[in-house]
Amino acid sequence: MNFESDNASPVAPEVIEAIARENAGPASGYGADATTERFSRRLTELFEHEVAAFLVPTGTAANALALAHCTPPWGAIYCHAQAHINADECGAPEFFSNGAKLVPVPGEHGKLTPAAVAATLGDIRAADQHRVVPSVLSLTQSTEAGTVYRAAEVAALADLAHRHHLAAHMDGARFANAVAALDCAPADITWRAGIDVLAFGVTKVGAVGAEAILFFDAARAADFVYRRKRAGHLLSRMRFVAAQFEAVLADGLWLRLARHANAMAARLAAGIAAAPGAALLHPTEANEVFA
Amino acid sequence: MNFESDNASPVAPEVIEAIARENAGPASGYGADATTERFSRRLTELFEHEVAAFLVPTGTAANALALAHCTPPWGAIYCHAQAHINADECGAPEFFSNGAKLVPVPGEHGKLTPAAVAATLGDIRAADQHRVVPSVLSLTQSTEAGTVYRAAEVAALADLAHRHHLAAHMDGARFANAVAALDCAPADITWRAGIDVLAFGVTKVGAVGAEAILFFDAARAADFVYRRKRAGHLLSRMRFVAAQFEAVLADGLWLRLARHANAMAARLAAGIAAAPGAALLHPTEANEVFA
Amino acid sequence: MNFESDNASPVAPEVIEAIARENAGPASGYGADATTERFSRRLTELFEHEVAAFLVPTGTAANALALAHCTPPWGAIYCHAQAHINADECGAPEFFSNGAKLVPVPGEHGKLTPAAVAATLGDIRAADQHRVVPSVLSLTQSTEAGTVYRAAEVAALADLAHRHHLAAHMDGARFANAVAALDCAPADITWRAGIDVLAFGVTKVGAVGAEAILFFDAARAADFVYRRKRAGHLLSRMRFVAAQFEAVLADGLWLRLARHANAMAARLAAGIAAAPGAALLHPTEANEVFA
Amino acid sequence: MNFESDNASPVAPEVIEAIARENAGPASGYGADATTERFSRRLTELFEHEVAAFLVPTGTAANALALAHCTPPWGAIYCHAQAHINADECGAPEFFSNGAKLVPVPGEHGKLTPAAVAATLGDIRAADQHRVVPSVLSLTQSTEAGTVYRAAEVAALADLAHRHHLAAHMDGARFANAVAALDCAPADITWRAGIDVLAFGVTKVGAVGAEAILFFDAARAADFVYRRKRAGHLLSRMRFVAAQFEAVLADGLWLRLARHANAMAARLAAGIAAAPGAALLHPTEANEVFA
Repeated sequence: MNFESDNASPVAPEVIEAIARENAGPASGYGADATTERFSRRLTELFEHEVAAFLVPTGTAANALALAHCTPPWGAIYCHAQAHINADECGAPEFFSNGAKLVPVPGEHGKLTPAAVAATLGDIRAADQHRVVPSVLSLTQSTEAGTVYRAAEVAALADLAHRHHLAAHMDGARFANAVAALDCAPADITWRAGIDVLAFGVTKVGAVGAEAILFFDAARAADFVYRRKRAGHLLSRMRFVAAQFEAVLADGLWLRLARHANAMAARLAAGIAAAPGAALLHPTEANEVFA
Repeated sequence: MNFESDNASPVAPEVIEAIARENAGPASGYGADATTERFSRRLTELFEHEVAAFLVPTGTAANALALAHCTPPWGAIYCHAQAHINADECGAPEFFSNGAKLVPVPGEHGKLTPAAVAATLGDIRAADQHRVVPSVLSLTQSTEAGTVYRAAEVAALADLAHRHHLAAHMDGARFANAVAALDCAPADITWRAGIDVLAFGVTKVGAVGAEAILFFDAARAADFVYRRKRAGHLLSRMRFVAAQFEAVLADGLWLRLARHANAMAARLAAGIAAAPGAALLHPTEANEVFA
Repeated sequence: MNFESDNASPVAPEVIEAIARENAGPASGYGADATTERFSRRLTELFEHEVAAFLVPTGTAANALALAHCTPPWGAIYCHAQAHINADECGAPEFFSNGAKLVPVPGEHGKLTPAAVAATLGDIRAADQHRVVPSVLSLTQSTEAGTVYRAAEVAALADLAHRHHLAAHMDGARFANAVAALDCAPADITWRAGIDVLAFGVTKVGAVGAEAILFFDAARAADFVYRRKRAGHLLSRMRFVAAQFEAVLADGLWLRLARHANAMAARLAAGIAAAPGAALLHPTEANEVFA
Repeated sequence: MNFESDNASPVAPEVIEAIARENAGPASGYGADATTERFSRRLTELFEHEVAAFLVPTGTAANALALAHCTPPWGAIYCHAQAHINADECGAPEFFSNGAKLVPVPGEHGKLTPAAVAATLGDIRAADQHRVVPSVLSLTQSTEAGTVYRAAEVAALADLAHRHHLAAHMDGARFANAVAALDCAPADITWRAGIDVLAFGVTKVGAVGAEAILFFDAARAADFVYRRKRAGHLLSRMRFVAAQFEAVLADGLWLRLARHANAMAARLAAGIAAAPGAALLHPTEANEVFA
């Protein structure tokens, strides 16, 4: 057993099989192929909404490209102080956005509250050329602390964001674990709750490397292909990424894997909580345990 | 049969097998695993020289990251006017380098000559704060026109570069085809000929997506890991990229595949040349045919 | 006498007087003062059109900020190969635009022609994610070779630009010399001829340092104040720049100075042309002489 | 009387006179003139140390260019949460550095303490490719709250910075007020206390627009001229900036003006403190009063 991270485990056998199957014949490169096309339709079905979807190989790329497309360089991105985009991506959002500012917001157990966001936003005066312009609010679902936002919590935050003309971004590197924990529809905690753009990753739940940026309003995605290409994230054999994603989504595999991971985390957490002298730092609501 | 591009064909079965094999058990993420370690040693062996090697998923990323690490933002990168980095990467080198300038150099059949490079360099005055600073000379091997630089040609260009304090970069997206065509050691057309940094890709020769940046002087690679991470090109399951690369290099597979591709291109070229009313734009020395 | 450059000469005494006069009392900083306000109105009058005007201290800043506001990072800016923005600003447009590409267009005597621009544009395929997007056409008026575009020439180039969805930019570091040479209204060679944004400098004609970016459609100027501030080009004592500009424009001083400079250049050119063994590289139409 | 900001007041008459005097004859542009040369020697004398000095027109440019030259894009700049570079420059340091991260440090009355900096630094693990690299510690002297660092306080902070391999930067937009308040030598609170680079401004104390970046180790300044030019901050008539700076430094004018401003602020603060129902937010040690 390896408790290091969800990246350290082997991937789902179904993913390897899909990669092998995808290799049966030739197909056009750079996403102009049937598998990628089918994957896009599958997402629209899964989210019960038209989406403009773009595949990339890493979660850092998915977040940073999405954020850069939602902020001007003189914008500010509000996120939890421990958010992966702020603390663990070596400044990727700043690089991709040409220097937008990440503004850390405090919050217990990795979660933002409307009150905390509003308090931080309050420091920024409106229409002042000396200050960066609040542009994006970013949530992580499930969070870096292993907790989960309920649909109503997402909606309250997205609503606050929209009232201040910020886009609502969700870092969904562990989106599957949140959907499994909440037993909800993917739509419930994304566009129906006001999320504008989702970085939806299935690498952590069982793919080799498959992440998608989903814009729920296609107008927001204008010119995004150039941004992706210029960042070196347009894979020539894109269809192998689409095939992985498709395999993970097929027959609810992603949710079965996520439920299993959540259950194992819960069991581990219960064990730790019961151990003398040990304590959990955060409630275990998804698949991460912090002791 | 599909003549579109080398990206459209299926990958080598050995690559799929290697991916499946790699999935046997857990391993640390982000390149801190045995397969990636073994791959690095394999490269050192193959190139008969210590190399600092970094895996990324695309050739655009490999080139743009390598170039950005060899030029300041106020630098100039000299390359063939039709070079992929200039014409087909949507400005990736400019993005990664924070705005370095690509200076196109003319040349027949996709090849640079010392005379042409010297003539273009001559336009830049030394130590003038109003002008960008010549920083990198980039060659493509095999070239965008399907031709190949001989070792002596590489050496003459790299020597010119070094006399003007430019780093010598090689875009090796089709490096295998050049090595196969020249029947030389990889070292002969890289560090022995003065190349400082090589973007060595095996995607086009048969991997799903596996490219490596090779610095032949480790000092040049200082801090490169930050540049890669911040660009979203550090894959969490890096070992699957290393496994692909390893499979392609094993038992000379890459050269067998490249020789086959070169031979097929030669046969196609011969057919076209013999056809009435048809003509080849460039000599067919590797695996690309332009009619 | 000093033939070095127009920057080497003293400035107009009226400019020094205006600076001294401006110092009579306090005023709000950062452009929120009466002099800057009056200057903006004066420009609207001079150009016979509403303009959104922004003062900066250098021509490089004026050009680079204007260009960056008209192109996405993945855009291409077409300009003469010898254009100051391409050859003499150390990559400023690339820096401000986060890596847009400058595409040099050949042309005699520093001038672009619709045919040459169209030929260069033709190399770029439409809507191809692998290629940068043509975004701006930049003219220099008067040109780096000391020649001048007639109003109809500007109109033909701007029209070509607009048909390809490019913005039309004019580098007017020597705008006064062109207006004086053509004896036309400033509007005739700018918005009436299709120019969208003008970098209008009066430093070379007699100010210490006063340049303005003029957008002829205010919608294009949205958020420009942030771009300027973040580049360090919002002067706290802005009114002293406005006062200089106002002094140069007052009573047609700028055109008297430009006519004088043009006449001196013409006299010098005539002398050179008459000298045995000497020849002019370009026709002398404004205030620069190349022998 | 105008209490708005030090930028709103007229400039020193000596500055206007120097500008007029500078206009007596021609001189080379871009800083290759006798006045700029003399100014550089004057700084060396004033700081009792060789300095590499670069003039720019604004404090934002001085700070952002200096910081960008001391950090890689993947670096982190530690500064007070209310530091001008963090809160009032619209992201200029992020823009100039290509996306370095500003890390706000809390502190009473605008001042950093070694303990607070160490606590914030502690969050960053060494040599971790997922995290930005701590690169610069920035102090403001006098601070945004109108307080002043004693020489020993500067030394303790710079020493902490150097032990962690950070450069020590000082934002000296109100440097004169600090020197006047402390009655010390400029060297005492800069290089003698470990400061590596100083943004020394005299705009606020009485110039139209004159700021200098001072590197106390010339090796740090390598290639800085390219960075300045490419940012549009190399003025063609640079000598007029040098002349202003020289006039402010002549015969101790800068310190007389700063002492006067400090004394007026102290008087105002005393009046406010004595007023019923009023209170000062911060001690008034320089020329800013916060009630």
